[in-house]
Amino acid sequence: MEAANYTLLIDCQDQIGLIYRITNILYNNQLNIIRNSEFVEKETNRFFMRTTFYGELYEESVMKQLKAALPDANIRLLSQTPKKIVIMVTKEHHCLGELLVKNQFGELNAEVQAVIGNYDTLRKFTEQFGITYHHVSHVGKTREEHENEIAALLQSYNPDYVVLAKFMRILSPEFVAKFPDKIINIHHSFLPAFIGANPYKQAYERGVKIVGATAHFVNNDLDEGPIIGQSVMPVDHSQTAQEMAQMGRDVEKLVLAHALKLVFDECVLVSGNKTVILK
Amino acid sequence: MEAANYTLLIDCQDQIGLIYRITNILYNNQLNIIRNSEFVEKETNRFFMRTTFYGELYEESVMKQLKAALPDANIRLLSQTPKKIVIMVTKEHHCLGELLVKNQFGELNAEVQAVIGNYDTLRKFTEQFGITYHHVSHVGKTREEHENEIAALLQSYNPDYVVLAKFMRILSPEFVAKFPDKIINIHHSFLPAFIGANPYKQAYERGVKIVGATAHFVNNDLDEGPIIGQSVMPVDHSQTAQEMAQMGRDVEKLVLAHALKLVFDECVLVSGNKTVILK
Amino acid sequence: MEAANYTLLIDCQDQIGLIYRITNILYNNQLNIIRNSEFVEKETNRFFMRTTFYGELYEESVMKQLKAALPDANIRLLSQTPKKIVIMVTKEHHCLGELLVKNQFGELNAEVQAVIGNYDTLRKFTEQFGITYHHVSHVGKTREEHENEIAALLQSYNPDYVVLAKFMRILSPEFVAKFPDKIINIHHSFLPAFIGANPYKQAYERGVKIVGATAHFVNNDLDEGPIIGQSVMPVDHSQTAQEMAQMGRDVEKLVLAHALKLVFDECVLVSGNKTVILK
Amino acid sequence: MEAANYTLLIDCQDQIGLIYRITNILYNNQLNIIRNSEFVEKETNRFFMRTTFYGELYEESVMKQLKAALPDANIRLLSQTPKKIVIMVTKEHHCLGELLVKNQFGELNAEVQAVIGNYDTLRKFTEQFGITYHHVSHVGKTREEHENEIAALLQSYNPDYVVLAKFMRILSPEFVAKFPDKIINIHHSFLPAFIGANPYKQAYERGVKIVGATAHFVNNDLDEGPIIGQSVMPVDHSQTAQEMAQMGRDVEKLVLAHALKLVFDECVLVSGNKTVILK
Repeated sequence: MEAANYTLLIDCQDQIGLIYRITNILYNNQLNIIRNSEFVEKETNRFFMRTTFYGELYEESVMKQLKAALPDANIRLLSQTPKKIVIMVTKEHHCLGELLVKNQFGELNAEVQAVIGNYDTLRKFTEQFGITYHHVSHVGKTREEHENEIAALLQSYNPDYVVLAKFMRILSPEFVAKFPDKIINIHHSFLPAFIGANPYKQAYERGVKIVGATAHFVNNDLDEGPIIGQSVMPVDHSQTAQEMAQMGRDVEKLVLAHALKLVFDECVLVSGNKTVILK
Repeated sequence: MEAANYTLLIDCQDQIGLIYRITNILYNNQLNIIRNSEFVEKETNRFFMRTTFYGELYEESVMKQLKAALPDANIRLLSQTPKKIVIMVTKEHHCLGELLVKNQFGELNAEVQAVIGNYDTLRKFTEQFGITYHHVSHVGKTREEHENEIAALLQSYNPDYVVLAKFMRILSPEFVAKFPDKIINIHHSFLPAFIGANPYKQAYERGVKIVGATAHFVNNDLDEGPIIGQSVMPVDHSQTAQEMAQMGRDVEKLVLAHALKLVFDECVLVSGNKTVILK
Repeated sequence: MEAANYTLLIDCQDQIGLIYRITNILYNNQLNIIRNSEFVEKETNRFFMRTTFYGELYEESVMKQLKAALPDANIRLLSQTPKKIVIMVTKEHHCLGELLVKNQFGELNAEVQAVIGNYDTLRKFTEQFGITYHHVSHVGKTREEHENEIAALLQSYNPDYVVLAKFMRILSPEFVAKFPDKIINIHHSFLPAFIGANPYKQAYERGVKIVGATAHFVNNDLDEGPIIGQSVMPVDHSQTAQEMAQMGRDVEKLVLAHALKLVFDECVLVSGNKTVILK
Repeated sequence: MEAANYTLLIDCQDQIGLIYRITNILYNNQLNIIRNSEFVEKETNRFFMRTTFYGELYEESVMKQLKAALPDANIRLLSQTPKKIVIMVTKEHHCLGELLVKNQFGELNAEVQAVIGNYDTLRKFTEQFGITYHHVSHVGKTREEHENEIAALLQSYNPDYVVLAKFMRILSPEFVAKFPDKIINIHHSFLPAFIGANPYKQAYERGVKIVGATAHFVNNDLDEGPIIGQSVMPVDHSQTAQEMAQMGRDVEKLVLAHALKLVFDECVLVSGNKTVILK
């Protein structure tokens, strides 16, 4: 066994002595902590901890000791191997392009397994990068049929995460429930926020001075799950709705890429409808 | 008559030759244009122009010529004298403080005539700066009575602009109609936006990664009029709702101060529910 | 002849009546101004104007009239056709990737003619996008020989602009003089600025909280010509020099792309070692 | 003894088991950790830890146990009482105003004891806030005499921190050595950086598109010590050097206020010429 870096993610109800109990186990196993971040959420009294350590890990044994010490905790112990992801798209290329370029040069800490599109529009672009493209059309199918087809395809890849890179169809709670805490979405957002069709047109008509984007987990109960990252860019009256949308696309692609990096580096814990981001 | 800088603001339906006609008049009057910004809004085919020029101005004569040449236009011809403003507050000091400090050192291109508060909370703070504070309580009065009292006080000052620097009461359309295009407000705003009481608590519970602020004109028909400026600051899970609110206050005060500077420097034209900002 | 949009860029010594004279000519030719921005630089008393107009243009005739009216001015009259560009690279892919993706989807207002690299590293990546890649190695050549080889290749393409997208060799004044006002570069920059090898390592060691990038024209006399655009991203102590460099690459690619858009849309005028950006 | 929140700051050479040893002591003393951040700097193999805990603290006893367990560490154990600060100024009001307004409303987590100016310019403004102003003129004195006078005055207040809020004189290493890790400065900074007199004029002439500010500790050996915070604002060609300076002042005051909040909340550890900021 060779020494390597590992990340430990733990969340549970807070009580006195938790860090002591956890670090005691790591110490007894000759594992050296490089970085530790801990946070107790006041309202829920919930304990969140991310620990990066270095050493020779007997994973089964250490997990057994951790579970014995913290019987009610969620515990994830991970070597920093690249995650496997499938990207879902409709017709817009900007987020897909950002991810495919970074994937090709090993900058994602992830490996893109495939791209699924409900149109065939982005096939050529995807295949340029040597990535498989699956066209799963929704035409002539019920939502359930279409989603089942996608779900089966996703399950054949068994990805760590499913990235909605401007996938423009609403997913049913049944679909989302099959991939809990695994689906990440990017959507535009504004000050003030606009809902419904053609948000950039709405934003333009409202004369906003900022366009923005939000990357978030997709969960079952809410139209918008825990936020991972947000950013904005300035715009002005002289820009058309199309130019605002172009600015928005640049924000969207960077917010998505940065959010994914946090997720793939195991920095993001979910707490109810919020994220705790520990580095 | 001494040569000085003047600003000319014109808006009207677009037609061919407008800039030519306007600059012809300025040229004939020996006025030299230092800066000219013109913009035609595509959807409405409306022409907006801001011109700064230098020279000896025979104002009455030039205005007459301009009106003859552009009978249907809104024309404002202004020397860059400081505007007169009255500030309205409730209990929060941050926007007021920003304006009073800048006012004291002549950085507003405006002169604060007085502060009106519906509480007496900020009297001492205001008077420190040598500015008159009027406490106009809403207690035991109907909205109409309270607003009439404020309106009478405002009319006694006859300010160029009324600045709502965290004035936490909703103004009736009747009140707003008395000061058309003269009331400027600052309010928090978020990605996504939160409405209703205690927005920072809502934002905290939603786990936003950004807090923001919007400065806008207050008009009759809408709860939120034309946007003048917007900005944001990053926040994270470790900040309490109170700390997010503190960050928000720093954004609010700067967004308001920068928006006012644009308005006081005659850079802002209103077009429907949007602003056109020409520098 | 069909009606179309055109842009007119003029700079000359300021004098009274310039806008009047110019717009008179446009009016006489039945050309309707959609947008006009004019700026007089105080220190130099130099007049800069950008005008977008619509109509049927008899270019030769209008240019003749403009030159007669403004004999000492620089006058450029342009239809908004996409510019032709050649991109020069060394080994880094991020700026190249940004430009090739946008080029493929017609988002640059330009057409990439070819990519020239002093290494062969980015050949495969470039060719994925169907763009020609020229490897012009510097190995075993004098600087003069190498630059002459590149210059000949560039001249065979006759591009409107040469984009240095992380081309890591210093260009001689002789080379730069062959492409006046046509070479645009992106480089990292910091608060405080770092010069010399491995700037991100220097920035890391200095503990900066921000990394940034500057897009600028390359001119003859100075190591850094007129700045077109700048931006930054926040970093912190927990990021390694490599992670800071990754953040820096995301800033660099967006700053370069946004600066190029301004140049290709004919919004940028050069004044000495500064740019005047009129929209 | 009442239960309260405390912060523990520790730095030392890294070794295995440090967090375990520290948290063991806290656990044995019935102290509950609310928040823990730990970071090992790779290059120096140095361990930094910030721990916030809650409980009844027997300070002397706990410190004795910590020192016994970590004999070579720097250990600071602090209740979160407001820091005492003295502000030093020359003639500019913007940073001073930001701090005095926040101080008046208890937003600094600090108490301003006094303001020292080498001119009398800001006396009236300071005294408006009920704060003592000391005019210590440098006129007719050697640098040593002037600094000795200031040092004596500072020592009479014995502040936790000395804030240079646009104090425009260079301090000698001898003066700085009297207040190690206690002096915090704000200065403008740019992309690229400008040194010497009238930096905003230099920035204007160079046509920068961003102005920025850096808050940092002042130390003995370097003209600029460990950076605490940095930020920027966009500017453009249309702004005069004076307007750029005004934008710069708004950045400066916010960067300084936010950096001080981090310092006063005990989030900042110094490592050589860098800061480690743990929240």
